[in-house]
Amino acid sequence: MKSLRRAIETQGVGLGQDIVKVDMFLNHRIDTALLFSMGYAWAEEFREDRPDLILTVEASGIAMAVAAAHALGDIPVVFAKKSATVVQNEDLVQAPVYSFTHKTQNNIRIDKKYLPAGSRVLIIDDFLADGQAVHGMMELCEKQGAEVVGVGIAVEKGFQPGGKKLREAGIHLKSLAVVKSIENGRIILRDDAD
Amino acid sequence: MKSLRRAIETQGVGLGQDIVKVDMFLNHRIDTALLFSMGYAWAEEFREDRPDLILTVEASGIAMAVAAAHALGDIPVVFAKKSATVVQNEDLVQAPVYSFTHKTQNNIRIDKKYLPAGSRVLIIDDFLADGQAVHGMMELCEKQGAEVVGVGIAVEKGFQPGGKKLREAGIHLKSLAVVKSIENGRIILRDDAD
Repeated sequence: MKSLRRAIETQGVGLGQDIVKVDMFLNHRIDTALLFSMGYAWAEEFREDRPDLILTVEASGIAMAVAAAHALGDIPVVFAKKSATVVQNEDLVQAPVYSFTHKTQNNIRIDKKYLPAGSRVLIIDDFLADGQAVHGMMELCEKQGAEVVGVGIAVEKGFQPGGKKLREAGIHLKSLAVVKSIENGRIILRDDAD
Repeated sequence: MKSLRRAIETQGVGLGQDIVKVDMFLNHRIDTALLFSMGYAWAEEFREDRPDLILTVEASGIAMAVAAAHALGDIPVVFAKKSATVVQNEDLVQAPVYSFTHKTQNNIRIDKKYLPAGSRVLIIDDFLADGQAVHGMMELCEKQGAEVVGVGIAVEKGFQPGGKKLREAGIHLKSLAVVKSIENGRIILRDDAD
């Protein structure tokens, strides 16, 4: 998606080998016009999959999920909550998510009644690296008998295995920008991602 | 605001004396159509105050901030991050926020460059009870030399002092619904809040 690619190339900062810093327009300060353009790009990609619900994880996925939901005709958004602990509560469905960045295991959880069996779920998130967060959300859907009809990502780290694994598993995945590598602080994007 | 009041009256649940549970349409599952109506209601109220930035706190304020920002012509959103600890980093501005619900003190923080001096800031949040979160955000703005031109709230607990204190301080406050009391699990709204 051109406008996101341009924002990453002109404003984004690469740190070390694998950190893509885009908090100036995506996940701390939000460029609202860009956000809604991203929502329309996901809607264009996933409309034919007829999602009736968008699932994301707090906090930085929420803005993107809302923009996509609006572009898809104001379908509901549900955001999973993060927690360091497993909570004993039979009304909740939970899944573990390991963070390679923070070297910690978290759990994500959702009130079961907001992810009904038979839902057609579009997962939206800001980053895809190892795919742990997406796998956690897919596990929540599987436990609830909901169907994942697609996965929409803002920035995929193409040098990490999450995207490849999802595509090989036959998941309909759309990353609006794919980072090929980080070279001396410069973020190099893959050409084929618009 | 009628549609929010109706959602609270028909779907919201009152717990005990002071808990207003609206996670079925506002802060866990999001009714996207209602969310964007709320955004337009805030935009209508605050357009003449010419905000050039919306400030909120993660996680549940983000969706509302994005809807208001869109209705105000896609102005940027900045969300403060929560943390249990004060971080030593001169690029960050921080403020304490005491949570009466959780009986804990948290800090909220923001990268200084995303809240520039002279900004005209509209604060948006889901709840207003004691006003601790709003005061924390006002403190961030004051430290940065940014001007708070208004405060937009989804659900104000009218039986707690936050709203009264802000109005007495001359802050332009708009709560889209004001809860008068909770009686036997029923949420009673104040009439004058549309």
